[in-house]
Amino acid sequence: MYAAFDREHLVPLWTEVGDLMPSEPRSRVLPHRWRWADLLAVARTAGSLVPVGRGGERRAIALANPGLDGRPFATATLWAAIQYLNPGENAPQHRHSQNAFRFVVEGEGVWTVVGGDAVSMTAGDFLPQAGWNWHSHINTSSGEMAWIDGLDIPLQLALEATFFEPGLEEPEAVDTPERSRSERLWGHPGLRPAEALPSSHGPPLLVYRWEHTDRALDDQLAFDDDRSVTAERGHAVVRYVDPVTGGDVLPTMRVEFHRFRPDISSATRRDVGSSVFQVFSGAATVEVGDQSWVVDRGDLFVVPSWRPWCVTASDRGVDLFEFGDAPVMERLGLARTRIEGPATSSAAGGER
Amino acid sequence: MYAAFDREHLVPLWTEVGDLMPSEPRSRVLPHRWRWADLLAVARTAGSLVPVGRGGERRAIALANPGLDGRPFATATLWAAIQYLNPGENAPQHRHSQNAFRFVVEGEGVWTVVGGDAVSMTAGDFLPQAGWNWHSHINTSSGEMAWIDGLDIPLQLALEATFFEPGLEEPEAVDTPERSRSERLWGHPGLRPAEALPSSHGPPLLVYRWEHTDRALDDQLAFDDDRSVTAERGHAVVRYVDPVTGGDVLPTMRVEFHRFRPDISSATRRDVGSSVFQVFSGAATVEVGDQSWVVDRGDLFVVPSWRPWCVTASDRGVDLFEFGDAPVMERLGLARTRIEGPATSSAAGGER
Amino acid sequence: MYAAFDREHLVPLWTEVGDLMPSEPRSRVLPHRWRWADLLAVARTAGSLVPVGRGGERRAIALANPGLDGRPFATATLWAAIQYLNPGENAPQHRHSQNAFRFVVEGEGVWTVVGGDAVSMTAGDFLPQAGWNWHSHINTSSGEMAWIDGLDIPLQLALEATFFEPGLEEPEAVDTPERSRSERLWGHPGLRPAEALPSSHGPPLLVYRWEHTDRALDDQLAFDDDRSVTAERGHAVVRYVDPVTGGDVLPTMRVEFHRFRPDISSATRRDVGSSVFQVFSGAATVEVGDQSWVVDRGDLFVVPSWRPWCVTASDRGVDLFEFGDAPVMERLGLARTRIEGPATSSAAGGER
Amino acid sequence: MYAAFDREHLVPLWTEVGDLMPSEPRSRVLPHRWRWADLLAVARTAGSLVPVGRGGERRAIALANPGLDGRPFATATLWAAIQYLNPGENAPQHRHSQNAFRFVVEGEGVWTVVGGDAVSMTAGDFLPQAGWNWHSHINTSSGEMAWIDGLDIPLQLALEATFFEPGLEEPEAVDTPERSRSERLWGHPGLRPAEALPSSHGPPLLVYRWEHTDRALDDQLAFDDDRSVTAERGHAVVRYVDPVTGGDVLPTMRVEFHRFRPDISSATRRDVGSSVFQVFSGAATVEVGDQSWVVDRGDLFVVPSWRPWCVTASDRGVDLFEFGDAPVMERLGLARTRIEGPATSSAAGGER
Repeated sequence: MYAAFDREHLVPLWTEVGDLMPSEPRSRVLPHRWRWADLLAVARTAGSLVPVGRGGERRAIALANPGLDGRPFATATLWAAIQYLNPGENAPQHRHSQNAFRFVVEGEGVWTVVGGDAVSMTAGDFLPQAGWNWHSHINTSSGEMAWIDGLDIPLQLALEATFFEPGLEEPEAVDTPERSRSERLWGHPGLRPAEALPSSHGPPLLVYRWEHTDRALDDQLAFDDDRSVTAERGHAVVRYVDPVTGGDVLPTMRVEFHRFRPDISSATRRDVGSSVFQVFSGAATVEVGDQSWVVDRGDLFVVPSWRPWCVTASDRGVDLFEFGDAPVMERLGLARTRIEGPATSSAAGGER
Repeated sequence: MYAAFDREHLVPLWTEVGDLMPSEPRSRVLPHRWRWADLLAVARTAGSLVPVGRGGERRAIALANPGLDGRPFATATLWAAIQYLNPGENAPQHRHSQNAFRFVVEGEGVWTVVGGDAVSMTAGDFLPQAGWNWHSHINTSSGEMAWIDGLDIPLQLALEATFFEPGLEEPEAVDTPERSRSERLWGHPGLRPAEALPSSHGPPLLVYRWEHTDRALDDQLAFDDDRSVTAERGHAVVRYVDPVTGGDVLPTMRVEFHRFRPDISSATRRDVGSSVFQVFSGAATVEVGDQSWVVDRGDLFVVPSWRPWCVTASDRGVDLFEFGDAPVMERLGLARTRIEGPATSSAAGGER
Repeated sequence: MYAAFDREHLVPLWTEVGDLMPSEPRSRVLPHRWRWADLLAVARTAGSLVPVGRGGERRAIALANPGLDGRPFATATLWAAIQYLNPGENAPQHRHSQNAFRFVVEGEGVWTVVGGDAVSMTAGDFLPQAGWNWHSHINTSSGEMAWIDGLDIPLQLALEATFFEPGLEEPEAVDTPERSRSERLWGHPGLRPAEALPSSHGPPLLVYRWEHTDRALDDQLAFDDDRSVTAERGHAVVRYVDPVTGGDVLPTMRVEFHRFRPDISSATRRDVGSSVFQVFSGAATVEVGDQSWVVDRGDLFVVPSWRPWCVTASDRGVDLFEFGDAPVMERLGLARTRIEGPATSSAAGGER
Repeated sequence: MYAAFDREHLVPLWTEVGDLMPSEPRSRVLPHRWRWADLLAVARTAGSLVPVGRGGERRAIALANPGLDGRPFATATLWAAIQYLNPGENAPQHRHSQNAFRFVVEGEGVWTVVGGDAVSMTAGDFLPQAGWNWHSHINTSSGEMAWIDGLDIPLQLALEATFFEPGLEEPEAVDTPERSRSERLWGHPGLRPAEALPSSHGPPLLVYRWEHTDRALDDQLAFDDDRSVTAERGHAVVRYVDPVTGGDVLPTMRVEFHRFRPDISSATRRDVGSSVFQVFSGAATVEVGDQSWVVDRGDLFVVPSWRPWCVTASDRGVDLFEFGDAPVMERLGLARTRIEGPATSSAAGGER
């Protein structure tokens, strides 16, 4: 019978049901941490050896989760890479169906040009870029610059849905104003242009500036004894949203920023779906599944689907940038969260 | 037969069809203009003669459209009033199903307290207040203050849907910080609290500050030669939106702010639904149906449903605050707009 | 001061607040009942005296609520009329922004032609017709026919949003098949055409046949001891929905059909918004506010906004057709319901 | 440098960009056809050798696409299997996060019990079952029965989102009425219970009967010279929808039924996303990519993402059942379709 199965390209359920339908998600993804210093060193080496241009497209070096057979995937759905440009270098224009963003942990001097709108990139800025928008990067400064790219490459490969199209090889001649067109039209709180038609796919706001994120986190933390505002005392979280809809900034990625007061611990939680975190400032001890690391400025780590995780801030506190695939789970009706234990403060007295 | 109709409480269609089903809206509302100086004078007189408190609830004096039989309705669906508080006076707490807002054409020193959150009111600020939120007003200053209230009282009376409940007679003891809790949680562009539960009905942002509106208008006007940004050259329009949904700030009222460059004229247009405008700064000549007025700072005027209107800014330009019932029309599938003629610039050359 | 108010077209709030902002809706609409026999008698008289054609448009005789100053409005938002055609008579084509429907309490032989699709009308059928669809009625039979028209005329007048356009004076030459095109494309449970584009505004299904409604009511009643299915034992309610959205069949009107087992009473309830009921079969005692009537086949009655009402079926049970303005209240955020007392069975034992 | 990449779990983009970001989807899935006779023979053998019960859960034998390394996946996102029960056999209760359905190409006598509601399965019936509903299968007849199961197992594995929970081992004692509770409450065209709360996750209608599908296809085909009804002359398509929303019957699967008149060919088209087809009756020649087969009753074939396909019906016409992952693509903003050539009739004259 089993020979007949093979011959006919058939496989019985009963021998595989445990692997196909486990009682809860068994992620192949491993908890892992990458150090920013290592990433930056490798990127600089590549900067001296590997040119940027048509074909290779970007000098981007991706996190390859140790559980994923050497493939350049941070998790089953997410791509994360460090991208690096030498002074005066440009990355050519292209567009793709993948949703993408840039997050700048340090540095300045590069502009991402989206549909002719040049957007400056400085520390703490978040630049979403929904699929199928033309874009390039230009370094107009005399310094190097590195930043983080996040994309849904593994998701779109799994869904067999990916399109790519090369554009101009030379950078567009564009103005590089301090504030992009997108910010001037869409970056005012609670206001939108009454008539404006979208000039890009996805969110029309192309950069979320650090000054706003920083202030929003401080403001929220000021109300952290009100459980209707923050989930946990001493832990504020803001979410980047599309101002047109109020919903997640990208259709396949949720992007949030966490600020922990010194010595505060989060609850241990599990979520269906995976996330990648980067430390923006401060330091923390992180536990993910059976792993534990101390993470510092620029370090990245991944949380696999349904793996328990918690964060304990150092005595300097910690600011954490996070992106994950929660919108995929929510849009397909697959989201679940389990809070496994109460958060505990490592401060004396354990007030919660 | 007609006697039988009367006796049986019946009315034939055929004798009334022209009135019941006209070929296009025949608004009873008349185009009308109220001068701010007159309103303020009347309000000050009332301030010296009429106390504020439980029962009368507010020292508010409403625009009574001349076409509406002396009823205190600016249009068939909208209420607009000047509200006035003497130094140190308070207006008691209540809540109602009517959606409301405050717009401040001049002055400062009053706080609107919504659900315990005190929100300062200063020139150019817009304070939405969705139905059924507890609210009061307190004047903590040594000066008088007047502002505009907009509500959907006529709409809710016509729909027989109105509820009201009195609250505390004495003002709540509240902090009066420079920035309200609502602004600190919800007033950051493109960001929302990840966990926050709404503490009020409707939009959680309780004030839209003038500095943002002013900047958004200037920014938009900088792109006014791009027809995908502004409908007309020299005429910017921003809309107040609920940051949770990106949609209109109130379920029954659209609120927008216009800025015209000097000497610019709008197109003549008609819309199903009515609006009330107030000049915030500058001056303009306004034509509504067969009426025409020169309007200046603080002046209000109404545009009835389906009546053609246009604005020509003075040589100082004009800033116009507008609220209307467009969301009602859109939610019920009744919206229509007709642009009757191209806008013409009064500047030499008439380039559009 | 009050003279100044008058002169300036101003009205103070404090003298009118009780009328403008009552603690709960004070409907001007009176509970009232119209007898089908009286309506039919009047309609037949009109049939012999008044022609049908362009100008008068329809031989429709409207319920004029005694609380509404002789205007032909069943409630503040709803129009209800008996329409009557002699053998071979036609009502000319027109279209209007008002949403409309036909409900057939008895008879047959008339076709409503909507956008070229002829729909037969027989007892128990419900024919929705969203605004701005071209339509006419043709009586191809040798008998008279009368039915009920429901429209949102008062609502659209109050909103000053009404448009009307006359069409062909002579009936379109159309086929009159047993099943309309709309039913053949959209009348299959849980199925829709994969590619079909809408050929009319609003719901593409132009008739909801009695056989389906009747069966759905019987089927639901079979589960009436399950409180997750029916709100009350012995009382089934089905709602007409747009198959494209699953939502209310018309944007401004909710239409439902009730079936009560013999001797069953409903709970007493109040709703924001008004309704018109017609007895389709059986009989009942109805209490609305301070009124009470025994109603029989074809009789109509109105329930004003926020007025308590309940129904007790006769020993034959009762089938009740109902239409109301609930979608308006829901879309504008104004809906409220209060169940004032438990339903009581008039059967011995009062098992609930 | 590349050694450092390896050591640090990093992979450069530039060496892999062509594979990671191809210009259009490169599906690993191969066009393939399985013959019903072969499937049935294998299933019967399994019926005589392999018991059904807890652990193996179901006697289901899955299509294993030859491009997917022997895994039991019909496409990258879809599972399709033949399930088989001997007379009197039962499959135990369980629930899982995977969305599922049954489609019956022939036979009768089995009931799927969902949340206590027993639903009979007969030829042509489609039974959707959204994730996390308890369900079992019971064969109450004296005959064998086989049917097709479709699930989103590969999708949920790729997303690492899968949950499973075993339930009762013995069949629930349930009534097996001709019409299920779900049909009686939710199976009436254009009608819904006004009060009913959902008793299951996802669509409350648990079976879509062949009589309705058959009639809907015939009805639609009658209008096939109207391009607003069918995309192609001689080719009708109906879609199974959730009556509560009007949208796709399952959040991750679109399910449709095609009927082709004799000798009619479809256009050649490509879609992002994959599909599985089963011939329900008639026969056809199918081209998918570089493959071509003649398919007959019960045969299944897969169309990989973005692979061109077309169907030419035999001189008996053909009825085709189809399910695919289109809702995933639409919900995530990834849907694209390209119609590559006009449909051509193989009938003499090529009238289109």
